Amino acid sequence: MVNSIDFITGSTRKFQEIQGFLEPIVLVQKVIDLPEIQEVDARKIIEAKIIEAHKHKEVSPFIVEDTSLYLDAIPGLPGPLIKWFEEALKDAGVAQLAIQLGNTKAVARTIIAYAAPGKETIFFEGEVEGTVVMPRVSEGFGWDLIFVPDGHTKTFAEMTIEEKGALSMRGKAAQKLRDFLIT
Amino acid sequence: MVNSIDFITGSTRKFQEIQGFLEPIVLVQKVIDLPEIQEVDARKIIEAKIIEAHKHKEVSPFIVEDTSLYLDAIPGLPGPLIKWFEEALKDAGVAQLAIQLGNTKAVARTIIAYAAPGKETIFFEGEVEGTVVMPRVSEGFGWDLIFVPDGHTKTFAEMTIEEKGALSMRGKAAQKLRDFLIT
Repeated sequence: MVNSIDFITGSTRKFQEIQGFLEPIVLVQKVIDLPEIQEVDARKIIEAKIIEAHKHKEVSPFIVEDTSLYLDAIPGLPGPLIKWFEEALKDAGVAQLAIQLGNTKAVARTIIAYAAPGKETIFFEGEVEGTVVMPRVSEGFGWDLIFVPDGHTKTFAEMTIEEKGALSMRGKAAQKLRDFLIT
Repeated sequence: MVNSIDFITGSTRKFQEIQGFLEPIVLVQKVIDLPEIQEVDARKIIEAKIIEAHKHKEVSPFIVEDTSLYLDAIPGLPGPLIKWFEEALKDAGVAQLAIQLGNTKAVARTIIAYAAPGKETIFFEGEVEGTVVMPRVSEGFGWDLIFVPDGHTKTFAEMTIEEKGALSMRGKAAQKLRDFLIT
């Protein structure tokens, strides 16, 4: 069993959201800026990240992560391009887009890729269905401000990190990774 | 005056659309696959392309090109991400999106970057305003099927390559490049 793995990410928030799920395995954040290819297929993005990460020989075994948000109103989009939708339209603009199109259903999906030297990369996915709403609070990570998971009334931004982790796409993917690592 | 420049592009159609405007300067297509960064800012994309292109020492002086389509209904988008909108939604889906949002106005913008050894990169922009419409014919380059330039009734796809070139964003940028090169 591995005792420690690296998580290559510039996002301390993503690191925090995954770290707790992996105990007793120690997760170490490695801030390496991996160039991200332009793609609408999340799987291809994360595969390219793995290739880039392998160029940093000191890092292994390690994980990389990619999280996408899909709006039912524009099938297949924004997906991994959500960050650019956020940059261009802001949270309210993304929610407004879905509202204007008459369909606020959305799916959030995290892929965690685990790579160990000489082994094939393994992918763990977590998915949550929900709806997008106009922002209700002012502070939130990524698009947490506008996403309400099905069966709940709070947006991710209105939850504690533990509440969110227990039901989020990232938490689900992290739990699958842990199950794999401890067996 | 330079006699010949390279155009680094995998697109023969883009090559054809620019070639005619540069006479008597000879344009040579160099098919080099330049990795494209994930960005919603066209200028940053083309600057990254230039950096990549400089790694191919045999190529110089050269141009690279980037063309974006902006929908007024979703300010700042899709821009350079139009290719992913096309991949996910297809031509009809992109047009449908604008129609559903009640605003079919669009702007098409081409940036050509010219790089010569030891000189600063120079950028030439061409822009055309228009509207998006549902596809009327079945064959067309990129999103030519759904773009009608203002003051015209045909989509780019319904025009000859010469008709399109005379008024397109790519033709305008190419003419500015020629004016620069011959003086």
